[in-house]
Amino acid sequence: METLSYGQYSLVYNAFSFTFATMAATTLFLWLGRSQVGPAYKTALTISGLVCAIAAYHYFRIFQSWEEAYAVKDGVVSMSGYAFNDAYRYVDWLLTVPLLLIELILVMRLSEQETVSKSFKLGSAAALMVILGYPGEIATDNTTRMIWGTLSAIPFVYIMWQLFAGLGASVASQPDSVRELVKKARLLTFASWGFYPIVYMIPYTNLGGADVTVGVQVGYTIADLIAKAGLGVLIYMIAIRKSKAEYGEVAHA
Amino acid sequence: METLSYGQYSLVYNAFSFTFATMAATTLFLWLGRSQVGPAYKTALTISGLVCAIAAYHYFRIFQSWEEAYAVKDGVVSMSGYAFNDAYRYVDWLLTVPLLLIELILVMRLSEQETVSKSFKLGSAAALMVILGYPGEIATDNTTRMIWGTLSAIPFVYIMWQLFAGLGASVASQPDSVRELVKKARLLTFASWGFYPIVYMIPYTNLGGADVTVGVQVGYTIADLIAKAGLGVLIYMIAIRKSKAEYGEVAHA
Repeated sequence: METLSYGQYSLVYNAFSFTFATMAATTLFLWLGRSQVGPAYKTALTISGLVCAIAAYHYFRIFQSWEEAYAVKDGVVSMSGYAFNDAYRYVDWLLTVPLLLIELILVMRLSEQETVSKSFKLGSAAALMVILGYPGEIATDNTTRMIWGTLSAIPFVYIMWQLFAGLGASVASQPDSVRELVKKARLLTFASWGFYPIVYMIPYTNLGGADVTVGVQVGYTIADLIAKAGLGVLIYMIAIRKSKAEYGEVAHA
Repeated sequence: METLSYGQYSLVYNAFSFTFATMAATTLFLWLGRSQVGPAYKTALTISGLVCAIAAYHYFRIFQSWEEAYAVKDGVVSMSGYAFNDAYRYVDWLLTVPLLLIELILVMRLSEQETVSKSFKLGSAAALMVILGYPGEIATDNTTRMIWGTLSAIPFVYIMWQLFAGLGASVASQPDSVRELVKKARLLTFASWGFYPIVYMIPYTNLGGADVTVGVQVGYTIADLIAKAGLGVLIYMIAIRKSKAEYGEVAHA
């Protein structure tokens, strides 16, 4: 790695702490919301909350790993000799990225068979995308990074095509009150996921080592916040509105 | 033990962290799901969640024990002098393996008497299997390992015979909507459990010490993920479908 200024070190440090707090708070918000939706939407909120809970755990670990990787004294940052563990992001994504697609499918309330088959297809493609990205992320040269990144883009394109073409008819059949929200959730998924490959490509630029580190860490963090907590809140709104339309007002403890 | 490369150390480290996160997430998923199933299926979800909770606890311990067993600095891995505690796996299995069989029996909703007698018989055999395996696991020579491994295989074969012959009639009497899922759950149990003896036998090969350590740790971890979290999700699906068929849509907080 490389020498960070104290400001750069702190920016990443605070971004990680902020993200842990946001993910943990969103988890609780979504799980408490389970009692306000009809039976058909409970699993969607369970899984949206799980995604944020898993992310909260990993941001806690990432935060600790960042702290251990640097020694900070009198405003000077130096490497501690303990490596920052980049793998936490990938193991997080391996779990959460398939679940993100599943929460989107669940809130649409398709037939049981369609739910299972689409969850399986999109979930597997998402896991494959994450697995193929990892060897590139830890590579020290940009050629290796580019090869794996390109391979990882294949399932990415397949997922996007499925979201827009494969799920198009299902989106169109959603009730009026939520159709626009479902489209927004899909668009938010598309836009936030599109951010990851951009961050992945930061090392291709001729930025210096420290700027690359900060850019990659802050970039992935922003993308995670939108893709997980942001999507979670949209899923909540859709579930509440659909429950009202289909079950009347739901009020359990 | 033996010297691991940094990549080998990290692979096991990240596999343990991933498994802790997966087990904890599955626990919450199954316990939140309790409100979505009928009274007859709540205990099956409670126990499936417990299995994952116990595993999460042990993977947290295993993770810490792994971290303490090695000193890693500047990318070089050396032994710290503190032993890695292999016993965590066996005490975990002593608790969780009988419970895994019980969750499978519970979700089938047999008569009360049959549930108790089958749980007792299969649970005891499972505990015996784990107890007999342990002296072999910690043995330093392969002959001792093989003797205890073979003894442990006797209750293993008995359990499999019971699952396929003894529970065959009960499986056939499951409602149409879940019969295939119950068969899948049984097959998943068979396949994932069959993986443990294979991992157990890795030290019989002429692989080097570090490769054996990594193979055994990663192998058991994958088997645990499938046997516990994978089975838990199947149990959840079976419980939801049977509840819908037997109770109509269930909506408790």
